Amino acid sequence: MPSRDVPPGYTPLLEKTVAGFLARHPETFDILGPDPDRWRAREVGDGNLNLVFIVQSDDGRSLVVKQALPYVRLVGDSWPLPLSRSYFERRALQLQSEVADRFLPKVYFYDETAAAIVMEYLHPHVVLRKGFVRGIRYPRLAEDLGAFLAQTLFGTSDLALPAPRKRAQVSFFSGNAELCRLTEDFVFTDPYRIAALNRWTTPHLDDLAAELRADAELKVCSQRFKWLFLNHTEALVHGDLHTGSIMATPEDTRVIDPEFAFYGPMGFDLGAVLGNFYLAYFAQEGHEQRSHERHEYREWLLATAEQVWGTFTSGFLRLWQENATGDGYPAELFSDPVARQALEKERVVFMRRLLGDALGFAGMKMLRRIFGVAHVEDLESIEDPDRRAHCERKAVRLGRELVVNARAWLSLADVNVRARELS
Amino acid sequence: MPSRDVPPGYTPLLEKTVAGFLARHPETFDILGPDPDRWRAREVGDGNLNLVFIVQSDDGRSLVVKQALPYVRLVGDSWPLPLSRSYFERRALQLQSEVADRFLPKVYFYDETAAAIVMEYLHPHVVLRKGFVRGIRYPRLAEDLGAFLAQTLFGTSDLALPAPRKRAQVSFFSGNAELCRLTEDFVFTDPYRIAALNRWTTPHLDDLAAELRADAELKVCSQRFKWLFLNHTEALVHGDLHTGSIMATPEDTRVIDPEFAFYGPMGFDLGAVLGNFYLAYFAQEGHEQRSHERHEYREWLLATAEQVWGTFTSGFLRLWQENATGDGYPAELFSDPVARQALEKERVVFMRRLLGDALGFAGMKMLRRIFGVAHVEDLESIEDPDRRAHCERKAVRLGRELVVNARAWLSLADVNVRARELS
Repeated sequence: MPSRDVPPGYTPLLEKTVAGFLARHPETFDILGPDPDRWRAREVGDGNLNLVFIVQSDDGRSLVVKQALPYVRLVGDSWPLPLSRSYFERRALQLQSEVADRFLPKVYFYDETAAAIVMEYLHPHVVLRKGFVRGIRYPRLAEDLGAFLAQTLFGTSDLALPAPRKRAQVSFFSGNAELCRLTEDFVFTDPYRIAALNRWTTPHLDDLAAELRADAELKVCSQRFKWLFLNHTEALVHGDLHTGSIMATPEDTRVIDPEFAFYGPMGFDLGAVLGNFYLAYFAQEGHEQRSHERHEYREWLLATAEQVWGTFTSGFLRLWQENATGDGYPAELFSDPVARQALEKERVVFMRRLLGDALGFAGMKMLRRIFGVAHVEDLESIEDPDRRAHCERKAVRLGRELVVNARAWLSLADVNVRARELS
Repeated sequence: MPSRDVPPGYTPLLEKTVAGFLARHPETFDILGPDPDRWRAREVGDGNLNLVFIVQSDDGRSLVVKQALPYVRLVGDSWPLPLSRSYFERRALQLQSEVADRFLPKVYFYDETAAAIVMEYLHPHVVLRKGFVRGIRYPRLAEDLGAFLAQTLFGTSDLALPAPRKRAQVSFFSGNAELCRLTEDFVFTDPYRIAALNRWTTPHLDDLAAELRADAELKVCSQRFKWLFLNHTEALVHGDLHTGSIMATPEDTRVIDPEFAFYGPMGFDLGAVLGNFYLAYFAQEGHEQRSHERHEYREWLLATAEQVWGTFTSGFLRLWQENATGDGYPAELFSDPVARQALEKERVVFMRRLLGDALGFAGMKMLRRIFGVAHVEDLESIEDPDRRAHCERKAVRLGRELVVNARAWLSLADVNVRARELS
């Protein structure tokens, strides 16, 4: 088990020290070639927590070094954060690759002392969030994301695993508690109280920020969903599956950065994806040079969100029907036709419950990105604060409705209708 | 972390070797006096898994040695079971004693190699199940049990604990997976399929046993509750809180044997208590020498079950109102009057959900005691199989209704009405 202390050998890497670090790992030479002098590193980390180096040899071979920093990069070194998250990320990538390998970056090796994962450099992939800001369409995205969600959430759950194996994984990932705590505070709590790191488009949204803190119904619901986050160990969730954790080309989709991974509610990952689609949707108007020029693209976003859910559902149900090897709902109990039919109905109930969980989490994710510490480029890149606030106001309304009415929506199509009404 | 292998120094104790074992622990002399020749041990374990020795010195001082065996005593040494359960039991007793000390046996010391807990000999306490068979009333029982449940379930949950501390405890107790597996199989699965160890009063209940295995609705519900057992880490539950794990006098109540302890749904302990009260209720008729002589006692059992729930509810709510120091529903978010009122309503929703969980688990516990491997003395001690089957048939009906309608009951009073109708 990793310690939260910085180990003796740990030093943050620099662009000029990365080649030396890599040269101490013989595996590197197979990837980048034999001569470290021909390797070039540049730091490109744009996330909140880590250093990320792209390293390329002059003949075009490449890799990425992702190194954890012992503090929250976004906030500064006053906010310590354990390096062990790198250890959990690596383990999550291993477990995810057992069930959804084609959607992940290939991991070359891991250096625990350096808290560094050395892995495939994905190119010409673009972070999905940036693609959405630019208005790029991804024809494979819905199918790939739906499949990734179905395979990872099913494959790490009690529907697929023997209970003792799953309990061992719950035990392991419970060690990632400090990363969970960031979510517990930043997503589920801080937006609903006065917190030093909260920020929003001000003074435009001052009224809404105050309303949020006074909204008793919303606050109760926020804690209902936090309870699921704290207590429901349904699957190994990515834990931070926003559109910044997805890299895509029109032909390929990869999910990166599971450093928040833990055993949590399936709906948390589903909601992260959906919430970020809706944030992107409401942001589009702010990116228009001419009125309505993003109309079709916005519709593509809604349609894609709906397709993600559809692909997820059908993929998850197919796995459940064909690969029910776990201790939950063991196939043996449902072998006769009547029981099989009853189980089929139960699966519908199960998926409906997941939809409610997902929408509640989606709403919470949207609200935190507008009032909490960490915002999203979709909205931040709208420079005019009037325009930005205009978009954000609509997103806040949908976010709130998703949370407080989470169990009332019948389908993503219904949510899309409401999103269109609001926009 | 304990290993599941038998450690080198482990040997099952015998009545004649217990004094020697104790004499190697200096703490013993403070408890039993200086002279081991004056200590007498007798093995009294009547459970399914362990050795239990009462050790008394000839001047009346006493203690109990509870030693785990590396297999299921009930089945034989063909069924291995890890000694580490003793380690989890000891830790559970520690954590429970932080919040509910007066309802526990005092632990003197623990020998990990011997997988032995040395603790207070409770006397003149009688195992509650035996008391119920004899028709003994316990005036303090409802209040004590309700308080124990409220204090342990609240005090180990996210309502009381900071999330990282709770996640550390979830991590630790996830190691008790093999004990959980016994419950997963024996309670939630085996009664609903053909399993080698199943048994029932035959041929009297052959029809019901076959009905159970063909009951699609019941099987779906059994797995719905198993899902909670597998996934909801709400509190450190005792895990085996039947009336054989409670020792009582009319003045005192103690809860023993938490070797199945793990982080699970709060309703599981609540349901274990209630289900065993209802089993005791339906068994009473079988213990009557004269018709109706147990009528008042049966009513006392129903009234006590209802009072347990009432005391639990009021105790839990009071703790939540006065000691909400955890990360779930943090008090800070609910400090203004409107939010406080909304939270008060949410607490009612929370308790209603717990009632549904508890009744579902109660029903599952009842059914497994009639069709699974481990039965209860309440019913087994009815020697005439016709009479026994007559009682069991009624208990099965209530058990099934509790499971399939778990969320429909409004109160324990309603369940009691139905129990009376059936009896």
